[in-house]
Amino acid sequence: MNVAQPIEWTGKGVVMLDQRRLPGEVIHHTYTDYREVAAAIKDMVIRGAPAIGVAAAMGVALGVERSSARTLDELRAEFPGICRTIAQTRPTAVDLFWAIERMTRRFEQLSAANTPFDALRRALVEEARAIHAEKRATDEAIGRFGAKLMPATGQVMTQCNAGALATAGIGTALGVIRVAIEEGHKLSVFVPETRPYLQGARLTAWELHEGGVPLTLITDNMVGHFMKQGKVDAVVVGADRIAANGDTANKIGTYQIAVLAREHSVPFYVAGPVSTFDLTISSGEQIPIEERSAEEVTHIRGVRIAPDVPAAHPAFDVTPARLISAIICERGVARAPYTESLRRLASIVMAIS
Amino acid sequence: MNVAQPIEWTGKGVVMLDQRRLPGEVIHHTYTDYREVAAAIKDMVIRGAPAIGVAAAMGVALGVERSSARTLDELRAEFPGICRTIAQTRPTAVDLFWAIERMTRRFEQLSAANTPFDALRRALVEEARAIHAEKRATDEAIGRFGAKLMPATGQVMTQCNAGALATAGIGTALGVIRVAIEEGHKLSVFVPETRPYLQGARLTAWELHEGGVPLTLITDNMVGHFMKQGKVDAVVVGADRIAANGDTANKIGTYQIAVLAREHSVPFYVAGPVSTFDLTISSGEQIPIEERSAEEVTHIRGVRIAPDVPAAHPAFDVTPARLISAIICERGVARAPYTESLRRLASIVMAIS
Repeated sequence: MNVAQPIEWTGKGVVMLDQRRLPGEVIHHTYTDYREVAAAIKDMVIRGAPAIGVAAAMGVALGVERSSARTLDELRAEFPGICRTIAQTRPTAVDLFWAIERMTRRFEQLSAANTPFDALRRALVEEARAIHAEKRATDEAIGRFGAKLMPATGQVMTQCNAGALATAGIGTALGVIRVAIEEGHKLSVFVPETRPYLQGARLTAWELHEGGVPLTLITDNMVGHFMKQGKVDAVVVGADRIAANGDTANKIGTYQIAVLAREHSVPFYVAGPVSTFDLTISSGEQIPIEERSAEEVTHIRGVRIAPDVPAAHPAFDVTPARLISAIICERGVARAPYTESLRRLASIVMAIS
Repeated sequence: MNVAQPIEWTGKGVVMLDQRRLPGEVIHHTYTDYREVAAAIKDMVIRGAPAIGVAAAMGVALGVERSSARTLDELRAEFPGICRTIAQTRPTAVDLFWAIERMTRRFEQLSAANTPFDALRRALVEEARAIHAEKRATDEAIGRFGAKLMPATGQVMTQCNAGALATAGIGTALGVIRVAIEEGHKLSVFVPETRPYLQGARLTAWELHEGGVPLTLITDNMVGHFMKQGKVDAVVVGADRIAANGDTANKIGTYQIAVLAREHSVPFYVAGPVSTFDLTISSGEQIPIEERSAEEVTHIRGVRIAPDVPAAHPAFDVTPARLISAIICERGVARAPYTESLRRLASIVMAIS
């Protein structure tokens, strides 16, 4: 199955798919300077927490690989500036800082060991590629665990884009669907367009279509209608943050899909890596909801659709754990009570780590 | 309170507000030929069942008033063509045929009585204006009954446009809100944008804003989030067709708002004239759902937002009676069991009729 690649390390530089132009145009940029990678992250050429982490790591590696420093000391002096430039792009992206920190640790380790200059450059490129490979492995593990929960035949609904475009792997929610199909399930996907940003219409519909997965695009207000008609057999969505009790913050609209799923006895699954678990908060009540610009509601793709009136734009909502049938991560499937199951999965020391 | 006027009979002709251009441009057309009125109905300059009925009546009156016939016989020969032209505009609009039939009955009555030519022309114009006045009176009666159900202070949600623009009165659902505000209720309105056609964003937001009613525009997937936050005190929507048992067909998205309202213990009201009651069908199961063009989902205001993938576009959905707290019509308020209450209201012979 064809999987969209939002980012790749190539001999020519870091190649990114420009997600802002999808689905109208499929344009790849090749970056040979870390400042270009930073600008691409900031300008949302790439989006989705895991994919941003990969981009940040590759940006740091590119900065080191293409540095004009002639000695290790010169590179040591330049390195913090590279990291700072990458860090100042998306201030709320946790994966961005995690990736920069990991690249910094690796740099300091090699630098402290007085690794030969060329070997150090190669090792940092390898570290960035390793981060990318780990994201892919995480998605694939989520996909394998989740696929077992999918119906043998039927229609699955998702929301927003928890796909390859967001993770640089096979996707979390969409990874579950992909693996299930590869394993022989006969699935088609209901894709709500996901206003205001239209990630469903622009990204998920494009990604599934490219991958040959059958889909039906709907508007966000058709969800209940199709569930009532018995046409939805399961829902699987991604997660931005999962509290210790299982309450899950995700793209606006997820909560009401969960309520509608419960009303129609449709199982509702959340798929997210352990890195989205936030066990320091006991419930979703403590997750702040980002309020974004009202202009994103009154305009669509730059076209004004409403008069100049007040509009609300909460970017996320919180789905209470009681509406979630299971949470799928790369270490297994958590079921209620989540306070226990999530803690158990989070504490597993993985053989690969 | 300023009420938008989608159509008016004036000394200069039939004046219509071009709803296709809202909210960007407020353009009125003055029609002096019945063929122009027919084209305006067909091209959706005006929409909404009651407003289309008024337009049809005025179109017939205009055809008679401006006819070049010199004798009653000549006019008798011309009349069926006028009606046919108006009738061939929106083949599924029940109000259109009702209005043409009523105008035809009046014409035949006057014609049979050999009414003087000028008096007959004046009488048909009066009949069209009477139809318009009756629509206004119906809305106002719905508004008065419904206002009593509105909270003294709070936020009310609606869906689509069941407003003055649709009825040529003060609106049904929006009429309830208007009258409540006039009677001293402190209300603001949550307006879901109502994809795919965006009647909420384009028409309801515009109409309420023009009328000085405070509002917040939201996307259709924010409904559950705001209800969960306790910010919605009541929902009031219009109706396209109400079955004998109270099941109600209305714009797509209405059903899921009703499910969410029940989940959050928010009362859910339907406002519609007795003419929307269809007591010949026992339940909503028998209401066919119009499937419209997928292009209306993949495009917004002419701009492509999705790749070339299959999209579904049911234009309406059916809300089961069990989710409806009350049905408000011009003769009173129906409560469950609706099979009895709707029949009782439908059989009342009104003093004004």
